[in-house]
Amino acid sequence: MNVLAVGAHPDDLEILCGGTLARLVKEGHDVVMCHATLGDRGSFVHTSEEIAAIRSLESKRAAEICGAEEATLGLHDGEVSAADPEQRRLVVDLVRDTRPDVIITHFPNDYMSDHNEVSKLIFDCSFHATLPLFETGKPHHDKVTPIYYMETIMGVAFQPTEYVDVTDLIDTKSAMLEAHETQLTWLRDHDGIDIVEQMLAATRFRGLQCGVKYAEGFVPCATWLRGTTKRLLP
Amino acid sequence: MNVLAVGAHPDDLEILCGGTLARLVKEGHDVVMCHATLGDRGSFVHTSEEIAAIRSLESKRAAEICGAEEATLGLHDGEVSAADPEQRRLVVDLVRDTRPDVIITHFPNDYMSDHNEVSKLIFDCSFHATLPLFETGKPHHDKVTPIYYMETIMGVAFQPTEYVDVTDLIDTKSAMLEAHETQLTWLRDHDGIDIVEQMLAATRFRGLQCGVKYAEGFVPCATWLRGTTKRLLP
Amino acid sequence: MNVLAVGAHPDDLEILCGGTLARLVKEGHDVVMCHATLGDRGSFVHTSEEIAAIRSLESKRAAEICGAEEATLGLHDGEVSAADPEQRRLVVDLVRDTRPDVIITHFPNDYMSDHNEVSKLIFDCSFHATLPLFETGKPHHDKVTPIYYMETIMGVAFQPTEYVDVTDLIDTKSAMLEAHETQLTWLRDHDGIDIVEQMLAATRFRGLQCGVKYAEGFVPCATWLRGTTKRLLP
Amino acid sequence: MNVLAVGAHPDDLEILCGGTLARLVKEGHDVVMCHATLGDRGSFVHTSEEIAAIRSLESKRAAEICGAEEATLGLHDGEVSAADPEQRRLVVDLVRDTRPDVIITHFPNDYMSDHNEVSKLIFDCSFHATLPLFETGKPHHDKVTPIYYMETIMGVAFQPTEYVDVTDLIDTKSAMLEAHETQLTWLRDHDGIDIVEQMLAATRFRGLQCGVKYAEGFVPCATWLRGTTKRLLP
Amino acid sequence: MNVLAVGAHPDDLEILCGGTLARLVKEGHDVVMCHATLGDRGSFVHTSEEIAAIRSLESKRAAEICGAEEATLGLHDGEVSAADPEQRRLVVDLVRDTRPDVIITHFPNDYMSDHNEVSKLIFDCSFHATLPLFETGKPHHDKVTPIYYMETIMGVAFQPTEYVDVTDLIDTKSAMLEAHETQLTWLRDHDGIDIVEQMLAATRFRGLQCGVKYAEGFVPCATWLRGTTKRLLP
Amino acid sequence: MNVLAVGAHPDDLEILCGGTLARLVKEGHDVVMCHATLGDRGSFVHTSEEIAAIRSLESKRAAEICGAEEATLGLHDGEVSAADPEQRRLVVDLVRDTRPDVIITHFPNDYMSDHNEVSKLIFDCSFHATLPLFETGKPHHDKVTPIYYMETIMGVAFQPTEYVDVTDLIDTKSAMLEAHETQLTWLRDHDGIDIVEQMLAATRFRGLQCGVKYAEGFVPCATWLRGTTKRLLP
Repeated sequence: MNVLAVGAHPDDLEILCGGTLARLVKEGHDVVMCHATLGDRGSFVHTSEEIAAIRSLESKRAAEICGAEEATLGLHDGEVSAADPEQRRLVVDLVRDTRPDVIITHFPNDYMSDHNEVSKLIFDCSFHATLPLFETGKPHHDKVTPIYYMETIMGVAFQPTEYVDVTDLIDTKSAMLEAHETQLTWLRDHDGIDIVEQMLAATRFRGLQCGVKYAEGFVPCATWLRGTTKRLLP
Repeated sequence: MNVLAVGAHPDDLEILCGGTLARLVKEGHDVVMCHATLGDRGSFVHTSEEIAAIRSLESKRAAEICGAEEATLGLHDGEVSAADPEQRRLVVDLVRDTRPDVIITHFPNDYMSDHNEVSKLIFDCSFHATLPLFETGKPHHDKVTPIYYMETIMGVAFQPTEYVDVTDLIDTKSAMLEAHETQLTWLRDHDGIDIVEQMLAATRFRGLQCGVKYAEGFVPCATWLRGTTKRLLP
Repeated sequence: MNVLAVGAHPDDLEILCGGTLARLVKEGHDVVMCHATLGDRGSFVHTSEEIAAIRSLESKRAAEICGAEEATLGLHDGEVSAADPEQRRLVVDLVRDTRPDVIITHFPNDYMSDHNEVSKLIFDCSFHATLPLFETGKPHHDKVTPIYYMETIMGVAFQPTEYVDVTDLIDTKSAMLEAHETQLTWLRDHDGIDIVEQMLAATRFRGLQCGVKYAEGFVPCATWLRGTTKRLLP
Repeated sequence: MNVLAVGAHPDDLEILCGGTLARLVKEGHDVVMCHATLGDRGSFVHTSEEIAAIRSLESKRAAEICGAEEATLGLHDGEVSAADPEQRRLVVDLVRDTRPDVIITHFPNDYMSDHNEVSKLIFDCSFHATLPLFETGKPHHDKVTPIYYMETIMGVAFQPTEYVDVTDLIDTKSAMLEAHETQLTWLRDHDGIDIVEQMLAATRFRGLQCGVKYAEGFVPCATWLRGTTKRLLP
Repeated sequence: MNVLAVGAHPDDLEILCGGTLARLVKEGHDVVMCHATLGDRGSFVHTSEEIAAIRSLESKRAAEICGAEEATLGLHDGEVSAADPEQRRLVVDLVRDTRPDVIITHFPNDYMSDHNEVSKLIFDCSFHATLPLFETGKPHHDKVTPIYYMETIMGVAFQPTEYVDVTDLIDTKSAMLEAHETQLTWLRDHDGIDIVEQMLAATRFRGLQCGVKYAEGFVPCATWLRGTTKRLLP
Repeated sequence: MNVLAVGAHPDDLEILCGGTLARLVKEGHDVVMCHATLGDRGSFVHTSEEIAAIRSLESKRAAEICGAEEATLGLHDGEVSAADPEQRRLVVDLVRDTRPDVIITHFPNDYMSDHNEVSKLIFDCSFHATLPLFETGKPHHDKVTPIYYMETIMGVAFQPTEYVDVTDLIDTKSAMLEAHETQLTWLRDHDGIDIVEQMLAATRFRGLQCGVKYAEGFVPCATWLRGTTKRLLP
């Protein structure tokens, strides 16, 4: 399968579905990890340009750890907007380029707008990508792709309906998140938290709910043309 | 009553509430069937201009079959956007022109963005249409109109609270949908489906739920100024 | 139509749907107001037998005011139980005796167990009443009757989907409730409230939500065999 | 796997999950189809004893068609009660006898109480079955078994989260239901319906929602000890 | 605490949380009452400029009555849009200027779009306000602020999880609302209502639900970084 | 305040609200920890009588650790039933004896029936306890007590609306749970889990959601007469 995972910022996928992505790669699937923004506003010490450059390297390293391909839409933090025709076009082309069999992205109601707008962009544009007359210079995708929403940050107001066992891949998941060195610092300073410890605690909690050591939770996007009769998650 | 029904594309109203509209006409009401877009991106064989011209004729024929008036906002497929001031103005004027006593439109969470954006446009702008100082050159409408949401395509994640018996009008409904000849082809090729058979199956299913042969399901929009103490559906 | 309204205690129907019942009578329907219990534990000053006798008279007077027939299951306060075979049999017979076209009863999640158990008894036994081999000596009812749930006391955790305009009947509703003289005292002493004022405030609030002076709110019971394609409320 | 499917009456499993059960058998699993009651009150022409005897034969034939084992709790229609210690003991022993890896049963909120009480009995007693000191003379089961709820009759107020493709088995499913000859008559006379046509329409509708010809819908029971990280449905 | 309350139009805060704001001031907190728009389209008799000027004075008087500071974003009625970068910047600066410890604003699903867009603007931009590299010339705020959503107009489709007792401040609340003299007229003419009576009825109803004379209802915004372990409402 | 906490089995309160109870005691409140059953069926090695005796001692020790009073209803595991008049009477008397200002108990939909039945018993009987004519030989309680539901085991299908910070009391909470020595063994053998580790992980997760190290989550019971205008949790 071609798997397209799209998070708002560099590190979101690592926190929310890093283990699942690592497992998908391990099972032989092609995984693209795309961060919508450059992560260029999450720093107290760097300029936007500097932090964007650093985070690009961190993202590539994280993707490399699990064997995924890295990509970005190149947007700016805080400016993701599903109403923006230019951004819509970018996402249509992302889908047309990656031709996914399954998409993983943010839940529509997460804790900040970039997450929520990414979710809407993916939902909207993975449909538009299939319209031949929505012309972008790239061939239209041949199916409306099933979407799995990963959970909200720290699982607030979210109840998974499907769990993926990531026990065997928890070290890979940690390593992927730790590749985002500047974020470990930023989140400590901006939000007073140790994101690796928090990720592990949240991943442990989802494991508790389904009877394994570590798990990640998802809900499928339930709309016409996206329903399936089999589980696409590992 | 003046009834304004607004679907995203030519054929959406026919699939989701064609029987109800036919019944409303039969009971003596004035019905306007408006499709927001020209349906200009749903084709593998025509250019946008060609398919738009064809679908305009198909829409007029479908409306004619049930005795409704046809209208369009003239937008492009995949570009409906409730955040667009120009589109908002168009919808304000649509409401001011048709002066509806009741509006039927898409459920806010349907399977693709044009549907969802139409729903939001109608909700937002049917209010603005009543503000005298929201000036568009047309007189403001004199009431915030009750809205009934028709169901999602194939009823995914939708539970009606009101059902309309369309048993007597199922042939009319089929004929209306069949008027969209190009769509029968497009949906077969794009989504692998026979939309008339599917519409009949879905309409039968709603009938099962309420004890008649064929029915269409709706939920009212529950907000201040739109509540009523009587049923406005037939 | 034959209308069967069943409340847990004498005065519940008066608080929650007195106006609707009065309107139904006025429109020519036969209405039975049944209170499940004798209301025999709501007193600080009387014995159970005394208060039951008094409340029976009050209930008859209230029903008389709106032109309904009064009935009771004769249960004891705090002992309504949908798991009790004897009570189930009583309700089967109530339905077989009254042969309703529509039933109005408590919402399944109200503020105390007698209300909730009445709701479950009615739901369960209005089905059993239709089974010829569920033998009670009375002929089985010929249809699974639609049910409308009236709202919870003071509308907590309840959102109506249908409103009945009771503006013209608000004085009748007040008079019906005032017929329960002992309850005005009991509720003042047990709960510190003026129930007539509270009923009026709640009825006014539902009016606000649907654009009339006074209204009562309901939700239909949504299950197979109970759905309808027309509104049975006035 | 050992699969235990429990419906309230003979024919409920056939209507709601017959295709899934047939597929499970075909894939090599051991399936027990248990009807809680004897179906002894659903007749206009037979006595309870007569109809029970007939339906027992019909049930065995239906199970035979798909290759499942038939079982019953031997309860009476309209008397299933999760509060009854004797019935609880029966279900504990059913679980201990069949030692299921997965259980399929009614959704907790279906259209009549036998369905709902069966759902609660299964939920409650499949846990108790694992307690060694809950002594019934049979050895305790060794795990709290995952439960999948099948849908409500005609899908009212139910949205599946998992679909099973039963396209290849739709004829088997029909044959299983048709084995309940007396029920085809009873439902025609009691409810005015052709249950085979209705079952096909409902199964087709679920197919529409997930992109196949025929499907059955389910939701997993989401509680501690019952969560899983893989799909147990076929 | 610094409290920032943001309503769509002049008078929304007065209707929905005037008592709570008055109580917060009385308890020593600094309260800013901001109306997003100038209220410049709610009039049958004035031009936009005239009505905006009048309503600015009315708003100042209302704020003065309870001891709050008045502010506005200066937007136009019907044009509030969370997708508009300019409006987002205005709200970022509002947060950076007022540095709130708690924010009160509209519920995300209220009866007209200005309310809903204000809710989204506040949610989105109170996060962006904390990003140092989201540069607006003002220093970033130092925390992601907890938000309480006030109820929808007339409480349609809203159930509070927290109530504030405003019994002692009901006269202040009425006076605040009455300061919006032109609105008393406009709402009478546009919607046929007496807004002071309606506000009192709604505030009484919420009181009924929690056992006091008058109350206002709220729900907290449940997302990461906004959760608290203590009640911030009075 | 008098606080009454009621769990199904010895150790449920320790897992779900031990920290909150310890904090309530520390803040000067009188806390009664009642376990409905004797815990007499959770053992692979003891007889029911033996394990009941052992767990009674464990429970007393756990209560002692936090300074609460221990109590029990003396029921048997797997037999808690809200439909049982005898059990109802026991709970009425528990409430009349302890005269609580606030009650903490199980969420109505937890993972096994004893939990759910306790929840219903408490809801139902804390009302009945206030009826003077519901005679049990003990004086009626003088108010319908607010209830907070603690979370489901491992938080499945539960979203708190209120959090209590138990960071300072996490060692006390652990010690309370560890007092249930036999349970540590039983849960390891019956469910394959280390309950102390799991409790800590779940308590950490709730802390993540509200910005502290460790927290416990609750939702208030939202019905008439139980609403409040202040937080009763610490």
